[in-house]
This record gives sequence, C-alpha cells and structure tokens, in this order.
Amino acid sequence: MIIVLKPRTTKQEITRVENMVKSRGLDTHIIEGSEMTIIGCIGDTTRIDMKLFEVDPAVTKVMHVQEPYKLASRAFHPEDSMVDVSGVKVGCGHLALIAGPCSVESVEQVMEIAQAAKASGANLLRGGAFKPRTSPYAFQGLGLEGLEILCEVKQETGLPIVTELMSAEYLDVFNEKVDLIQIGARNMQNFDLLKQLGQIERPVLLKRGLNATYEEWFMSAEYIMAAGNENVILCERGIRTFETYTRNTLDLQSIPVVRKLTHLPIVVDPSHAGGKWWLVEPMSKSAVAAGADGLMVEVHNNPECALCDGAQSLKPKKYDELIRQISGIAKVIGKKVDL
Amino acid sequence: MIIVLKPRTTKQEITRVENMVKSRGLDTHIIEGSEMTIIGCIGDTTRIDMKLFEVDPAVTKVMHVQEPYKLASRAFHPEDSMVDVSGVKVGCGHLALIAGPCSVESVEQVMEIAQAAKASGANLLRGGAFKPRTSPYAFQGLGLEGLEILCEVKQETGLPIVTELMSAEYLDVFNEKVDLIQIGARNMQNFDLLKQLGQIERPVLLKRGLNATYEEWFMSAEYIMAAGNENVILCERGIRTFETYTRNTLDLQSIPVVRKLTHLPIVVDPSHAGGKWWLVEPMSKSAVAAGADGLMVEVHNNPECALCDGAQSLKPKKYDELIRQISGIAKVIGKKVDL
Amino acid sequence: MIIVLKPRTTKQEITRVENMVKSRGLDTHIIEGSEMTIIGCIGDTTRIDMKLFEVDPAVTKVMHVQEPYKLASRAFHPEDSMVDVSGVKVGCGHLALIAGPCSVESVEQVMEIAQAAKASGANLLRGGAFKPRTSPYAFQGLGLEGLEILCEVKQETGLPIVTELMSAEYLDVFNEKVDLIQIGARNMQNFDLLKQLGQIERPVLLKRGLNATYEEWFMSAEYIMAAGNENVILCERGIRTFETYTRNTLDLQSIPVVRKLTHLPIVVDPSHAGGKWWLVEPMSKSAVAAGADGLMVEVHNNPECALCDGAQSLKPKKYDELIRQISGIAKVIGKKVDL
Amino acid sequence: MIIVLKPRTTKQEITRVENMVKSRGLDTHIIEGSEMTIIGCIGDTTRIDMKLFEVDPAVTKVMHVQEPYKLASRAFHPEDSMVDVSGVKVGCGHLALIAGPCSVESVEQVMEIAQAAKASGANLLRGGAFKPRTSPYAFQGLGLEGLEILCEVKQETGLPIVTELMSAEYLDVFNEKVDLIQIGARNMQNFDLLKQLGQIERPVLLKRGLNATYEEWFMSAEYIMAAGNENVILCERGIRTFETYTRNTLDLQSIPVVRKLTHLPIVVDPSHAGGKWWLVEPMSKSAVAAGADGLMVEVHNNPECALCDGAQSLKPKKYDELIRQISGIAKVIGKKVDL
Repeated sequence: MIIVLKPRTTKQEITRVENMVKSRGLDTHIIEGSEMTIIGCIGDTTRIDMKLFEVDPAVTKVMHVQEPYKLASRAFHPEDSMVDVSGVKVGCGHLALIAGPCSVESVEQVMEIAQAAKASGANLLRGGAFKPRTSPYAFQGLGLEGLEILCEVKQETGLPIVTELMSAEYLDVFNEKVDLIQIGARNMQNFDLLKQLGQIERPVLLKRGLNATYEEWFMSAEYIMAAGNENVILCERGIRTFETYTRNTLDLQSIPVVRKLTHLPIVVDPSHAGGKWWLVEPMSKSAVAAGADGLMVEVHNNPECALCDGAQSLKPKKYDELIRQISGIAKVIGKKVDL
Repeated sequence: MIIVLKPRTTKQEITRVENMVKSRGLDTHIIEGSEMTIIGCIGDTTRIDMKLFEVDPAVTKVMHVQEPYKLASRAFHPEDSMVDVSGVKVGCGHLALIAGPCSVESVEQVMEIAQAAKASGANLLRGGAFKPRTSPYAFQGLGLEGLEILCEVKQETGLPIVTELMSAEYLDVFNEKVDLIQIGARNMQNFDLLKQLGQIERPVLLKRGLNATYEEWFMSAEYIMAAGNENVILCERGIRTFETYTRNTLDLQSIPVVRKLTHLPIVVDPSHAGGKWWLVEPMSKSAVAAGADGLMVEVHNNPECALCDGAQSLKPKKYDELIRQISGIAKVIGKKVDL
Repeated sequence: MIIVLKPRTTKQEITRVENMVKSRGLDTHIIEGSEMTIIGCIGDTTRIDMKLFEVDPAVTKVMHVQEPYKLASRAFHPEDSMVDVSGVKVGCGHLALIAGPCSVESVEQVMEIAQAAKASGANLLRGGAFKPRTSPYAFQGLGLEGLEILCEVKQETGLPIVTELMSAEYLDVFNEKVDLIQIGARNMQNFDLLKQLGQIERPVLLKRGLNATYEEWFMSAEYIMAAGNENVILCERGIRTFETYTRNTLDLQSIPVVRKLTHLPIVVDPSHAGGKWWLVEPMSKSAVAAGADGLMVEVHNNPECALCDGAQSLKPKKYDELIRQISGIAKVIGKKVDL
Repeated sequence: MIIVLKPRTTKQEITRVENMVKSRGLDTHIIEGSEMTIIGCIGDTTRIDMKLFEVDPAVTKVMHVQEPYKLASRAFHPEDSMVDVSGVKVGCGHLALIAGPCSVESVEQVMEIAQAAKASGANLLRGGAFKPRTSPYAFQGLGLEGLEILCEVKQETGLPIVTELMSAEYLDVFNEKVDLIQIGARNMQNFDLLKQLGQIERPVLLKRGLNATYEEWFMSAEYIMAAGNENVILCERGIRTFETYTRNTLDLQSIPVVRKLTHLPIVVDPSHAGGKWWLVEPMSKSAVAAGADGLMVEVHNNPECALCDGAQSLKPKKYDELIRQISGIAKVIGKKVDL
C-alpha cells in the first residue's frame, strides 16, 4: 500500500500518518520526491481498509499495490486449475460444451434438446429451473419440478447438469442433485450465498456481474474458496455498457486476463451476452479462439415458443454446425474437443 | 408493443407474425409505411416476453410502448405517496434525515453519534450490523449483536432505526426490530429476497443497483409491491461509470425522474456515492435542491478509527453545519425540516 | 511514479528496471515488502510515458502519484480563478447566467429570447451558429450568418455572446466577434484546435467530453493553458452511462471535484445533459446548491417549432421563475446574483 | 416514427399532435390501445428532429423505427462492399493485415519493422506521424517529417501506408501521399473533418469513438459517404467502460453487428483496445474468428524504447507467430490470407 501525501507536508504531519499506519501493524518507508512525499506500507494489507487513511488531511490518495485475492491468484498458484464436474474435465485444455434451453419447460422438451446437443458434442446440460426475471409478472421457472426434469434427462443421457441457484434455501437439494451450481450475474455479490457455497464441495460456475470489475469478480471467487470450496469456474457473460443494441457487451479480453491473474478455468456464455441468436455463432468461435475453457450456449428445439429468451437460442441443427467449426478452431489453438 | 418488420416483407410474412401475436391473446394493427411495415399490438403485454418475436426472420426489432410496472407507476397513482416509518413521515414535503455510522461498533459509539445527530435534526438512525464487503477478509459487521446495539440506542434516543438486511434468514428478526429495512445496491435484484419483503409490512428502503436502469429499479420496487408491501422508499446512491476518482457517479437526475414516473419517495445517500467526506456536504445540498425526500448521511465521531468507510463519514460538528444549510435550501424549495 | 514488480523478482531484474528508470533522468528508491518490491521514481515524470515500463517482464504495474496537469492544478495555484467575459465576471462568487436558443434561427427569434432572458437576470447570451449534429441530414446551423445575428442582438441588448467553434477555420472571426468561445463535448480532445485556442486571449468554455474522466478534461484545459491562454471555464454537461432514459447522466460531483483539484470556474449545462425540459429546473437548482459558478440554459420562445433540441428548452416565463428560485438558493450558499 | 401518447389523452390532444406531425409533411396513423394511444408517422423522417414532438404535454415518448443511415445500411445495399487500398483488397474475404509502429521515429526504425512485418505477411504499413496525446507535454509525433519517412519506406517495401489525419489543414498532403487515411476515435465526431473527407476519394479508416454507439459510428460513416466518398472501412478499437485494468473494452460483437447492419468492411485494432502486448495475440485470433476483415497491430523492434505505447507493441518475432495462427483460423472461417 502506498500513501501519497499532499505537496508541502510538514515533518509533523508525516509522523502523524506514519503512526496511524504503524498502529495497524505495518512498517513504513518514506520516499521524499521533488514535489511530494509518499509512504510505502509494508506488511499484510488484505485486512486493512485502505481508504481509512484518506481521512487524514495530509493525505492525497492511497493506492494498493498488492492484489487483494490470494487463493484465486496465479501469483500464489502458478499452474492452471482443472475442475472436475462429475467426470467432465473443465480447464487445462479440456473444453466444456454446455448446452440446453434457457428454461426447463417439460421432460419432452429438455430430453429432445439434450439428446440432439449430446449428439453434436455437448458434454454438459444446462437448463433453468429457478429463473431470475426483471419483472415479477414474467415466468419465474418451474422451480423444484424443473430440477426433477433435469435429473430425469441426466439419467437418460448421462449428461451432468448445470442450473442456477438463486437462494440458500435450496442449497441442500442443489448440493445433492446438481453437478455444477450456477451463480447468476445478479447474485455475484450475494455474499451470504457465496459463503454458504464455500461449505460444500460441488463445483460452482460463477458468472461475472453486469458491472463487476475483474477484481470484484475474483474477490467473489475468493469468498467461495476462502470458505473451503476451491472448485470454482468463472463465466464471462457480458457487462453493461452504454451500447444497448446488444443486450450486453461481451468482454472477451476477460479470457486472457483471467488466465494471467488467476489459475481458474473460464467459460463464456455468448447467448446471454448478446441476446440475439445470430451473435452466438461468431462469438462462440471468437471465445474459443481467445482461449476460453468452455462455452455455455442456449439451444431450443422451438425458439418461437420458448417461455423465456427464445430470441437468443440456437436450433439443434445450428448448434451442430457451430460445434463443427469450434472443433476446427480448437485444433488450431491446441485444445481438445472429444466428439 | 410495436413490432417493426424488415423492408420488403411479403403479405405472407406479415400474416405469420400477426398470427404469432394473436396466439398470445393480443390484437394487431398494421401500419404500412413508405419503406417498412410495423405491427401495433394491443392488449396487456406485461406478461409477454417481447423479445420472442425477434425470433421471426421477418422481424427487425420489437419495442415496448407501455411501462412494465403498474403499482409503482405514477400513471396509475397520480398522487405522491408518503411512507410512515414508525411515526416519521417520509415524502409529501417531509424530509427524512437519516444519520449514523457506517458500521455499528459499540453501544458507546452509536449512542454518542445518535445523540449528536438527533440534536442536529436527524430523525432516523442508520448503522450497519450486517455489512456487504467486497473482500471476504474485511470486517463483516457485528451481525445480530450490532442489531441489539441499535435497538438499545433507539430505546434511549427514540430514533427509529434503519439497517441493511442481506439474507432472508434474518427477515423475521428484522421485521420485529427494524423500523426501515434497507436493501443494498448489490441485492436490488435478489428477487427471492424482494418477494419475501412483500410478505411483511415494514417499510423498505430500496437502494438502486450500481448498474440498474431506472426501469429495473422500479421493477424491483414492483416485486415488493406486487407481493403485498406498498411501503417502498427508493434510494439513489450512485451508479457505476467510467469515472473512478469518485467511488460512483451520483445521478441526481434520478430525483425528478422518480417523481415523474413513480409516486414513491426518494432519498439520496451521498456518502456511499462519492466515497469522500468532502463530497457529502455539496451533494447533500444539491440533492435537497433537486427535490429529494431525504438524505442518508454517514456520521462518525472518530472517522480515523472507523472499522469501515471512515473516509466518507462526517464528524458530528460538520453534520450539524450541514443541517443548518439544508434547512435553508429546504425553505426555498418548499420542504419542511422540523428542527 | 511507482513501479510494482512481480513477486520473487531477482536482484538482477530489479537493477535492470532501475537502470531503465535512471536512463530517463529519474532517481529511484527501492522498497522491499513482504511479498513484493516496488520502485519509487523521483523527478519530473510529466514528460515520461509511464506505461513503457510495463514492457519489462519483471514489472506488474506502474502507477502515477502526481497529477499530470500543472497550470490547471490547485496544488500550484491555491486561489480560485475568475474569468472576465467582456465585463461579466465568472467565478469567485460571481454566477454566470447564460441563456439563449439552441440554434440561431433569425434576428427576431434571438432578439425576443435575449430581451426576455436579460429581463429575468441572464448576463450572457448563448446561441448555436455552427451545430454539431450526429446526422449529416440534420439542420447544421446558419453558420457565419448565425454569428452575425448574435452580434446584432449583442449590440442591442449589451449581452456578451457565447457560441460554439467547431473548426480552426473560423478561429479568427470568432476571436474578433465572440466573447466566450465554446468548445463542445465532441471536440474536447481535438488537440489541434485546443492548441490554437491557446494562441488567443479570448475566454474559452470547455465542455467535458461524453466519456472524459476528470483528469482528461483537466488535461484538455492544460493544452489551452500551456499554449498561453489561461482564460478557461469548465462546463459539465453530462457523461454517457448505461442509462438512456435521460440523454446523459449529469455528474454534479464534478463541481466539488473541479473545485478541489483545479482553480478554474465551472459552469453547468443542464439542458443538454438531460435532454428533457422538465429536468432543467431541478437540475439548475441542484447545480447552484452544489456550488457551480454558472448555468447555461436553453431558452426558446417557441420550443414546438425550434429547428433543434426544442424538447430541452424552457419558455421565457419558466426561465424567469427558475432565476427567482436560483437566486434564493444562491443566497443560502453565499453566491451573488445581480438581478 | 412512433409517438406514444399519455394515458387518457383527449380527442383534441390527439388531433393537436397529429397536426404537428402533418405540418412536417408526414402522414399519420392512429392506434388506440387498451391503455394508451399511439400515432404511427409515415414518410421520410431522416430530416426531422424527432425529439421535438416530446415538447407537447400529451406526448410520453417518441421512438424511431427506421435506421437513420441509408448509404451505409445493408438494407439498401445487400452485398458486402470491398475497399481497394492502392491495390490491397479489404473485405469480401480479403484480410487486411496492417502492422507497424505506434509512432514514426526514424527511417531505420520504420524500415526494419516494415520489412519484418511484410515478411510475416502484413500487407499494409501503419505508423503515426501526427499523434493525438492526452497530455500537451507528451511526444506529439514527427508530423510531416514522419509522413515523409512513411513514404520512403513505402517506396522501398511496396506496402501502402495507413496514418492518422488530425486536422483538415493537412488534408491535401494526406490525399496525395497516404493510401488509407485513418480518423482516430477522438475525431469520430469531428463533423467538419468528416465532411471534407467526403470531398476526396482516398479510402478512410474510421475508428469507433470511445463512447460511440453503433448507430453514431455508422452515422459518422454516413457523413463521409453522403459527401461523396464511399470508400469507408470501419475500425473497432475498444470502448470505454467501468473496467480500467484494460485500457478499453474490445467489443467484438461489433463485428457481426457491423456485418448485419452495414455493408462496410470492419477491421479490429487489438493493440489500442487492451493497451497490453499480451492481450494482442489472443484478441487478434478472436477477432478473425468472429469474422473481422482485417487486423491493425502495433509492431516495434524495440518496445522498451518506443516513444509512445511501447507496452502494447509486439516484437517482429511474436508478430510472425501470430500471423501463422491467424492464417490457420482464417482457413477454418473461410477467409484467405496470402502469405
């Protein structure tokens, strides 16, 4: 941590700030520049509210130099992590191909989509049972009934399931039945829920919040990991910007950034990012070319009648074509897709 | 709802889209323009996923014309609403002056601050018992013990209390003891929690999410109201933009916008928006001049030692000066501050 | 400037980076922390491209500690600056009340508006002769003819004129005839134009770019000042955010920030920020309460027929009421409005 | 254009708004819904300031249904356009590989970089002669001398040159000597400059502004095209968002969006977007996989000593490796790279 002092601070002021730092168990180191003085603070600063020092009138600003996350950080864990989702490997060259409908509507619907997607190469099945909807009047998902449908289809197809948990109330049933527990963008900073996910061992797919910086996203992973669960997969799904033609702006730079700063796998969800089906194919190829460890794509057998987000779903035939191209790009990049 | 078709659509295509609309119980009305055709859809569209129609290849875009919220909307409730917080009126000319420390640290601390703030004119006491922190390693609040401290100070000073609820787990105890339940920015779209708040009658202070549009904010209020609790106060606390010198960008245009589109009271929190104590005074005056129904300001007797967010807290003396000026501006604007 | 090195850097690497710094004429100062080493760089860093050091593989990041602007900075010029616009003082307690139509349309139009505005208390006349329009098909302004109209109205009313310069081509005629040369948001980083404005002495009203950070805005002022013209007034007119109900988000925190970091006067343009006439009144009061040195408000005698931006214009009667209230708030704040 | 009226408007009000519309040469069409009335406006609305109708108190909002650009629009020009840059084809399956230093520093520097880049497969040479810099104290480029250096290297290598024009003052010399005139992000809405570019025939590389929506970007292309120059290539270079770890957020969804809505070629500049050299390789592959018509990449023989933006430059060897991979991806996608 670096504390920048105002120009022309007196010795007395410098000593006052130094003492404030030392009283929190840190060592100090003074650098007197041509126009200003700065105080370097040495020691573990992760538990200190750095903005506190800005209260002192002699202080201009406080800057941190150390990343505030440890367990998620590549600096302390140089090798890539791989997460095992009920036998399906994600990361370290293994591509997760997650496919399925936005909302679970019926056994027949999910079964038909799952079988088609599996035939194309998908290795994980997604489907929303509990749906976070902006409007209280919109379809909110089938709930536990939807979860049962997913389990039935899993039994039949062998595809492990991915579905979103919205409330700690259902943590036990999810822990028992769901292979990869998804935390949606809107709950990325639901800290109580994150802490509870740390108590179990199920892998967690942590979506980036619409307005989350990389650091905040990694800190949310850190919440889960610090509480004991290291099986975290990150998921980029677009951030909110001034551009509204697309639902969100897909930030594919996040892929190399995640790889640089953390050791966790990263999956991309192009369906929710753009909100338009014709963006899914180019963005899927783009994500894999940038080094993503997986794709989560909405597939629907009858998008015109979907109860939710039909406009962003691919039909099974389109999905099949997509996987062919993805597999070509994966080869160039050095990733394996087992078809 | 308006559906805009592609240039040069055929009769057949128009009929296909029309039928899709009618099958959802809406009437249609065709307008053929010089270059394109649009379909006006008549009926209640609040329960319809409008993006669905974008699936049809003849459709360019779908636009809604009606606001998706009803209970929060001024169109259906032309008079201003007033919310009664255990005897303190908020809205309709009555200014809520909420003050207190960011975090509850001890009875002595809260008591001293509350007494000073009350003497200056504050009519509600805030204090964080459960703290949402970006880092799992930061101070997370005293929890239920903190809530007990607030109750003790309330008993002594008579100030009703405002504190943040982070999880449905504590809803019952909050309903019993807290006068105004705050929902933080990060939980603005924790829909499960919102639905549960609709089951009780306690007033709710709903902070705007960091990336929430006005419409999304009002839809979150609608969640609470649709479930049965109409005692909602909105709270502007800054949005996330590209500017990082201030913690967030305080959007004071939200005050006249809330007043135009809804009938709910709106309170402003300048402390969290800017993250710097010297922004609090000008922004408080600014908010009241723009017509806010209240201010929520962090006050701390010893900001240098605060366990959280000391940098944005006013000392009691500064708060006292602020209230004097606020009261002058309120008079010009036609609002009453009872000092 | 602070250079943060990677964890576990070797002595050799540290020396390599140090030498790179020294070769640019700076002194270095090493701080070895528990987990990482940082290098403090001492000397004038304003002319150094700090990102350059990030090229070295041992470097994690480079942070500046010193503001990159000098002439605009309050640190080197502690007193407020006042700008004299042909006899009208702006800053140091003097409020600029700039009013007039968005576009100049005819002598009669401008004259009628100017006389009404002056009677209400306006002391500067605005009007667009050259109009920056997003569409090439939209009305582009009357150009030099519009400028002549403004001059004619100035002669009659005595109000100094404010109008936008879009191209260096007209710099001479603006320098001769315009009292306060406005640089629009879209040209805030038209560096060639800024340098040329530094060659003259006419005061410049520098609008903040839609996506400009405070620092970039101040650096654009620095361009003009470094080239020799210190008569710069800053103008906040809203920034672009994810919220699209309002045209832009008016950032009133910019007022105390400008005051803290620079010595320049700051004026607010609520008309362009919101794009809706009913936002102008509350935001004008809000801006003055926050300490603005002036307001630029669009006034039109017949907004329904305006050739541009009628939706955000006040009628003269509304403007008159606004000035009454502004003057009440100014009194509370300690500013003078001479009516 | 659609005008949405307030709930419960009277016949008289509807007629008033209708007349306002008709007086501007448009036909109207009324739709009476269950709760509100809307007016469809038929005719050419590109020259009409649509916000004007919001002035009427009976109007809630006005929405456009037609894109405001014509010449750039795919709707009126269904085939892809190809731009010929002095013999190098861009678009329609032909990939532009633009490489070179950020700033021109010397003949030797540019020559060495150009020869290496050409050997790797680059077909266009970039280099900044006039540099837009945030700080007036930073290196501003060699100006005309830099342009001469580029011409000399072009003569030797045969690579057509791409360089940025910052001011109309140099339009003639650029028109004579530069093969592809770059307009930087900060000048994307320098409308005077755009109009002048329409007077010549040289191809223009139009960078997206940091805060430009797709529509605004296309409108800027429309400015050039409407003035007579149809040789426009769009360039995505990142937009400004709340994330500051990367310089900007590269919006690769822009590639399919540009292709859907316009017929113009699109090139991606990953160097300026991220501001870090290690982002260039993954983002280049990503852009080509998404369907970009070209890449503009900064290459420097000695990034540690670059006068500008060294941190985002690739060394020639890295660039060579990149082009090998790009060429593999291009093959999968169906694009040709002539190496």
